[in-house]
Amino acid sequence: MTRLTEEARGVFVIAATPFHEDGALDLESTDRMVDFYLDTGATGLTVLGMMGEAPKLTLEESRTVVRRILARVDGRVPVVAGVSAPGFAQMKALSDMVMDDGAAGVMIAPPGSLKTDDQIVSYYHQAAEFIGDAPFVLQDFPLATGVHIPVSVIARIVADLPTCVCLKHEDWPGLAKISALREPGTLSRRISILCGNGGLFLPEEMARGADGAMTGFGYPEMMVDVVRETEAGNAGRARDLFDAYLPLARYEQQPGLGLAVRKYVLARRGVIASAALRKPGAGLSAAARAEVDLLIERQERRLKELG
Amino acid sequence: MTRLTEEARGVFVIAATPFHEDGALDLESTDRMVDFYLDTGATGLTVLGMMGEAPKLTLEESRTVVRRILARVDGRVPVVAGVSAPGFAQMKALSDMVMDDGAAGVMIAPPGSLKTDDQIVSYYHQAAEFIGDAPFVLQDFPLATGVHIPVSVIARIVADLPTCVCLKHEDWPGLAKISALREPGTLSRRISILCGNGGLFLPEEMARGADGAMTGFGYPEMMVDVVRETEAGNAGRARDLFDAYLPLARYEQQPGLGLAVRKYVLARRGVIASAALRKPGAGLSAAARAEVDLLIERQERRLKELG
Amino acid sequence: MTRLTEEARGVFVIAATPFHEDGALDLESTDRMVDFYLDTGATGLTVLGMMGEAPKLTLEESRTVVRRILARVDGRVPVVAGVSAPGFAQMKALSDMVMDDGAAGVMIAPPGSLKTDDQIVSYYHQAAEFIGDAPFVLQDFPLATGVHIPVSVIARIVADLPTCVCLKHEDWPGLAKISALREPGTLSRRISILCGNGGLFLPEEMARGADGAMTGFGYPEMMVDVVRETEAGNAGRARDLFDAYLPLARYEQQPGLGLAVRKYVLARRGVIASAALRKPGAGLSAAARAEVDLLIERQERRLKELG
Amino acid sequence: MTRLTEEARGVFVIAATPFHEDGALDLESTDRMVDFYLDTGATGLTVLGMMGEAPKLTLEESRTVVRRILARVDGRVPVVAGVSAPGFAQMKALSDMVMDDGAAGVMIAPPGSLKTDDQIVSYYHQAAEFIGDAPFVLQDFPLATGVHIPVSVIARIVADLPTCVCLKHEDWPGLAKISALREPGTLSRRISILCGNGGLFLPEEMARGADGAMTGFGYPEMMVDVVRETEAGNAGRARDLFDAYLPLARYEQQPGLGLAVRKYVLARRGVIASAALRKPGAGLSAAARAEVDLLIERQERRLKELG
Repeated sequence: MTRLTEEARGVFVIAATPFHEDGALDLESTDRMVDFYLDTGATGLTVLGMMGEAPKLTLEESRTVVRRILARVDGRVPVVAGVSAPGFAQMKALSDMVMDDGAAGVMIAPPGSLKTDDQIVSYYHQAAEFIGDAPFVLQDFPLATGVHIPVSVIARIVADLPTCVCLKHEDWPGLAKISALREPGTLSRRISILCGNGGLFLPEEMARGADGAMTGFGYPEMMVDVVRETEAGNAGRARDLFDAYLPLARYEQQPGLGLAVRKYVLARRGVIASAALRKPGAGLSAAARAEVDLLIERQERRLKELG
Repeated sequence: MTRLTEEARGVFVIAATPFHEDGALDLESTDRMVDFYLDTGATGLTVLGMMGEAPKLTLEESRTVVRRILARVDGRVPVVAGVSAPGFAQMKALSDMVMDDGAAGVMIAPPGSLKTDDQIVSYYHQAAEFIGDAPFVLQDFPLATGVHIPVSVIARIVADLPTCVCLKHEDWPGLAKISALREPGTLSRRISILCGNGGLFLPEEMARGADGAMTGFGYPEMMVDVVRETEAGNAGRARDLFDAYLPLARYEQQPGLGLAVRKYVLARRGVIASAALRKPGAGLSAAARAEVDLLIERQERRLKELG
Repeated sequence: MTRLTEEARGVFVIAATPFHEDGALDLESTDRMVDFYLDTGATGLTVLGMMGEAPKLTLEESRTVVRRILARVDGRVPVVAGVSAPGFAQMKALSDMVMDDGAAGVMIAPPGSLKTDDQIVSYYHQAAEFIGDAPFVLQDFPLATGVHIPVSVIARIVADLPTCVCLKHEDWPGLAKISALREPGTLSRRISILCGNGGLFLPEEMARGADGAMTGFGYPEMMVDVVRETEAGNAGRARDLFDAYLPLARYEQQPGLGLAVRKYVLARRGVIASAALRKPGAGLSAAARAEVDLLIERQERRLKELG
Repeated sequence: MTRLTEEARGVFVIAATPFHEDGALDLESTDRMVDFYLDTGATGLTVLGMMGEAPKLTLEESRTVVRRILARVDGRVPVVAGVSAPGFAQMKALSDMVMDDGAAGVMIAPPGSLKTDDQIVSYYHQAAEFIGDAPFVLQDFPLATGVHIPVSVIARIVADLPTCVCLKHEDWPGLAKISALREPGTLSRRISILCGNGGLFLPEEMARGADGAMTGFGYPEMMVDVVRETEAGNAGRARDLFDAYLPLARYEQQPGLGLAVRKYVLARRGVIASAALRKPGAGLSAAARAEVDLLIERQERRLKELG
């Protein structure tokens, strides 16, 4: 079975959770979405992410979705599952479940109650003990968690815990952090750095030493293109493509609205059947849909110009 | 089956979750604790509270604990279960489960994402729709939730949602809010107001119009005494008793430490077998235990003086 | 003397505060910067903004800077001064000072302690009473202030306080708010809406009914162009120009780093002598400067293509 | 001139700012208040505290108040002035002003923007450089500042900055922090630890190694008594007295209401002429005044019983 390692690279797409209009799980759309992500060039998937609709699922629904995705992926790429939880008993139960079902690793965000450097280190020590030998992604997303993890703390976690294989980098601004982590001597071993924030800084992040992206965006091909062209040495081409998608990526990055935009785009592209969000989420207004339509129209024109 | 109503009064003790030293559930201690609370004069119990160790339980453990408590209570007093959850699907699943198992009502705290008056009202409308006819307690605890619920919003919720039967009042400072809610004409119907904050303001809260307390404290008899003596017209006696317990109640009210103090007290009194907290919680230091011992010794002396 | 009115439109540039390398005020650069902003097409200036370096100035320095800017502007455009303060006595003193010196109006952000709709309305009532007949801009910037101001509260403030003439709109996401405010019947009178957030959503904001921008960006011509072309009916041209500047605008919008980017750009363009920030601020790293240089180079090429 | 040193001990009362009913400064009451504090046994005073009404004063008013207090104290006890400010230029200006006027030291709270251990240390390095040789108090008050300062960070500041002579300890819960700081070897030199939080934990804080209190309370004699009796070896007597004042101290500690309670008590005792707060503050309701009156009546009775 695939296990997540320090070699993780490319684009791990954060998977959406498709629903029918009435809020029920739409597993057919889930299958289509998995195929779409992999066809687009995703090198991995991440499920049960903190910012999506995973918290709106019951535990049984979570398991149903994860199993469906794992079955559809069928080992083609590694699948990471978010297992952040208020207590370690829940975290362990969730981690054991998804690893048994075939996940490649888990992702753990720090709870907002952690305040000092030592508290953060201690928390990950305890979490790692609970989840056993499951490889884990350290999620560094201060805007959402309220926890600021300095480079020295990441270094301590990497040195102490061999199961920490990847950093989901979502600090903002965070380019200096990538440079510091890639400075020889900072970390005792090289881990994977995959970046979030909707890919809005991906060209700069790649140049600073990131290995790719772990985030969502209705056009994952943007991230795939940027990573591929950057690694092929075509930084200029990477930026041209990035710039073409940027107006929409910027629009999708609005907090609290982004998921509705993403689902609208995925539905518009025929990937999922319905753009519906579960309550208390709400879909896009007519004005917002028209704005997205215009952005996509302009994006397609610009991509055609670029060839 | 007992259902929570607007007539709820007295002391609803927030139940602790007893563990063995190794972190496993201690159901024998749970039984003893239920008996202790009821013998002490509790008129209700509240389980799965937000601030306790409920979030550290797996879903199965939660159900086990709730069922054990309901079985032991056996209809003698109403039991309220916290069902706050990130999404309504989870909330509904949890609410249906506990109501089916015999709970008298549920308690719902607002998520921190709610910012404006209208958002709060709308959230409770949706929640009430999901939980159906289960009576619910509106939990008003800004220090923990970050959501400030003005009197006018409580009035709108009470007017719109007949299943809202009780306010768990834990605003701080909040005495003026009780007075405003009890002002004739503020609410379209009288609901129960039970107060939190470890009982630290119970004499004043009762004088302002509260119906009792819904909170924990290692000596629930303090709250029972204050409510009883106040209702019997012996306000001076109520305050004498309150003052005797206040040094310890103050000590227990330290955020992040209170639960460890409470469990230490319950274990010291022979109610539960172990004061152990589940990780990442920690027990009391030797210095803290000595401080609590001293406070209890002085408290007992003072109570003897009062006769 | 120019007074700010409901007719305010176009681009009010948030002025930076130029320093010498040693941290002393650089008034010659301040003059050049004023000329630059006005030559670029600014229809107003805003000084002593909350997010800039104004809080790092002593009161005397603040007055020196404001007077210098007012003298250089010499009535050509209205100048708005931020007067947010912990207490009304300070706010009044600051407001009286700048209005006496010739400012056209003041800007007031709500303090983070305001939690409910009524508290926000009440605060602006008191503030308006203290500042007397000075026209004021209501600053709506939840990400920075923590205060969420719903449309209904803005409507109450506009209805109650005739001196409220403009909304600095910086909610995020906030496009729906502009639409709601421009819906006939929402406000009792039309006020100016000028948008913030570094201009990152300016095309959409203009389409929703905004009157322009009040924000900073090292290339204010972007905002001037977008407003002009939108008003001339050339929405496509507006977006083409916007898109050309977007990669840099996105880079400048990084929280905590943006001001350093802006000053670097202004210094690079010869507008100010030094990009220095006052401590505890820090300038850009060599890597960041190279990133900005590349973005500007690409931006110039793209603008040339667009003609 | 008195300078604050590591030997600071006893009770530094946080001085209120007396106003006339119309909000103007009441300097006669200020004189009386100083005399009252010193007669009660204060060993120091603290002015311009973060949580009082100092932020409501204009800069000129601040200076007037500080000079008046310094003149009245006339060197009898050291006076500490709060100089926390958004920028170092303001902090330095304020610090120079009060030290020139005769203050014994200054107090600096960390701004909420500091997130990691290193950022906190770095901030105090810069602050200490700006204020020169003025002795300073490190204010550790996470509930208000949002900044959590671990023991190891305090140790680094004490080791690096000889002008750091005192910790205003207001962490909550914070007893373990005092013990850790007093553990031999933790700090490179002994500094003074004076505790806040309205004195609510003073007996325990003294037992853990604190040197006294730096906080307000309408009856400073409580703190003076507790410190004196503790130092005289009469811990039981200290607690008896403490317990007598506790019901009122608890009432005064309500956030957002405490200052109104304190001023009401000071006015009731004839210390200041008016209990008025500057807007947007508000005074006590009739119900609250009656509650305080009752608490004082009971307190006096209990103190009489204790002899």
